[in-house]
Amino acid sequence: IDKLGFVPKFDALARARKDAGRIGILTPSFTSDSFVDRLRGIIAALSGMSYEPVIYDIASDAQRDGYLTSLPVTRHVDGLIAIDLPIDETAAARLLKHKLPAVQILPSCLSKTCQDIISIVHDDIVGGQIAAEYLLSRGHHRLGYIGDTNLPEFLGTFKDQKLDSFRQTLALSGVALPDDYVELGPFGMETARQLAHRLLDLPTPPTAIFAGSDTQAIGVLSAAREKDLRVPDDLAVMGFDDIEVAEYIGLTTVCQQLKESGRLAVDLLLKLLSDNDSAAQSVSLTFTLRQRATA
Amino acid sequence: IDKLGFVPKFDALARARKDAGRIGILTPSFTSDSFVDRLRGIIAALSGMSYEPVIYDIASDAQRDGYLTSLPVTRHVDGLIAIDLPIDETAAARLLKHKLPAVQILPSCLSKTCQDIISIVHDDIVGGQIAAEYLLSRGHHRLGYIGDTNLPEFLGTFKDQKLDSFRQTLALSGVALPDDYVELGPFGMETARQLAHRLLDLPTPPTAIFAGSDTQAIGVLSAAREKDLRVPDDLAVMGFDDIEVAEYIGLTTVCQQLKESGRLAVDLLLKLLSDNDSAAQSVSLTFTLRQRATA
Repeated sequence: IDKLGFVPKFDALARARKDAGRIGILTPSFTSDSFVDRLRGIIAALSGMSYEPVIYDIASDAQRDGYLTSLPVTRHVDGLIAIDLPIDETAAARLLKHKLPAVQILPSCLSKTCQDIISIVHDDIVGGQIAAEYLLSRGHHRLGYIGDTNLPEFLGTFKDQKLDSFRQTLALSGVALPDDYVELGPFGMETARQLAHRLLDLPTPPTAIFAGSDTQAIGVLSAAREKDLRVPDDLAVMGFDDIEVAEYIGLTTVCQQLKESGRLAVDLLLKLLSDNDSAAQSVSLTFTLRQRATA
Repeated sequence: IDKLGFVPKFDALARARKDAGRIGILTPSFTSDSFVDRLRGIIAALSGMSYEPVIYDIASDAQRDGYLTSLPVTRHVDGLIAIDLPIDETAAARLLKHKLPAVQILPSCLSKTCQDIISIVHDDIVGGQIAAEYLLSRGHHRLGYIGDTNLPEFLGTFKDQKLDSFRQTLALSGVALPDDYVELGPFGMETARQLAHRLLDLPTPPTAIFAGSDTQAIGVLSAAREKDLRVPDDLAVMGFDDIEVAEYIGLTTVCQQLKESGRLAVDLLLKLLSDNDSAAQSVSLTFTLRQRATA
């Protein structure tokens, strides 16, 4: 601050002049349905604002690090939202140094990686608990789980916390989830359909299947139809995410407020853009049961 | 070409040096499911290539024109794919002058707007014909249609050709599609669900509904369930697009090769990037019936 007290104003003016008018969104495999719904929230929130969304689809840690290195310098964007792509201490320091505001959306297991960046945290542990408690309450005690393998390298310590907490919650009620009843594969409807057939071909098949995502639950429903099983009488199917289509196909699921998380990220980022010195804070998203027709 | 004949090589080298390593994708409301599937095709095709996708979500003609003006100069990207965003003569001339290769995906009604840009054309007229012929062959003669209103301004002369050709094909068989049996509204599952209720509440409701997109067909299926109608016995439901979920929920639809169109756009663009002088050509996509459980 100089003696005329103009520095902050000048600073703001300089920043305004340099404004690219764009918000960068870093997302891995955004084409998965849950990322699309988060993006829908982001884009809806940016609509009518003076910032346009630019989406960077990240397929490797080198790409992520590349953008986190170049964007603070090129200023092709005025702020960043990173979805499930933990920003490490080095990258965070660079963002802070170059005053490029950023907000990240990430699972609770990764939320310790960098506390200097404002975070919106989704706690998948709670999601697994909700599913287990609900299916137990419906009288199921032979359950199956379908989830992901081969998460991309750059998600690092990211692991499927839903499975762990689903299993633990069942165990608290004396219900086991044997490994035979857990099928993991690459994300997608087709894989989930095939994995569901494996569970349904077991000598004593599960009476309920919890899928790690609604996308996978749709694959399970498809397998149930192929086996002429009535849902939910012969087989209860439960998803996770509450993507848009879930309501319309009557899928019982755990809502993780995908669109809301996107909107919230924009709100927090716009606040940072108008005052880059606001103290970093983390926000946790609430998970809720959406009871519909399939379980 | 100078006397040493080095110009072309030097030119290629200079272009290589400037390579941003990125392909820009311009798309309106990419969050609609059909855009997402086209993007899936683009991203899958770019995977492992030396170009990363950067997606610009376009909400107005000013935004589109802004990017078509700035990107050829900033070279933030090395090439462009425009989805259902017609590039006009002025913008095309600028792209050509600055040697920024571009490929567009667009409906046949817009394909005359600029013939200097390589186009991948989807002919929605054929889509409406296929739906009408199929539903007629299943014995329906009281049909309904649900489609879009309020297309964004920058889509200009874009109109719902599916409805026109659906109606005309029915008329050829002496089947009328009265205005009461056509409900148009803003794109989305929820609107489609409400519009379907209107059709189903008619004194003599349709025995089959053709929706302008699979997303809208899912809303129709939801309304049918709410009315306790058996699909397809009480009500046949047919979609349009063949988005990924269609197969898994057994939706009968018209496949317009969404992912394939994205892959094709990348192939054509990469060819242009390696040889910017290749002659412009248009490619037409084939539409096919996907007969499944709902019609």
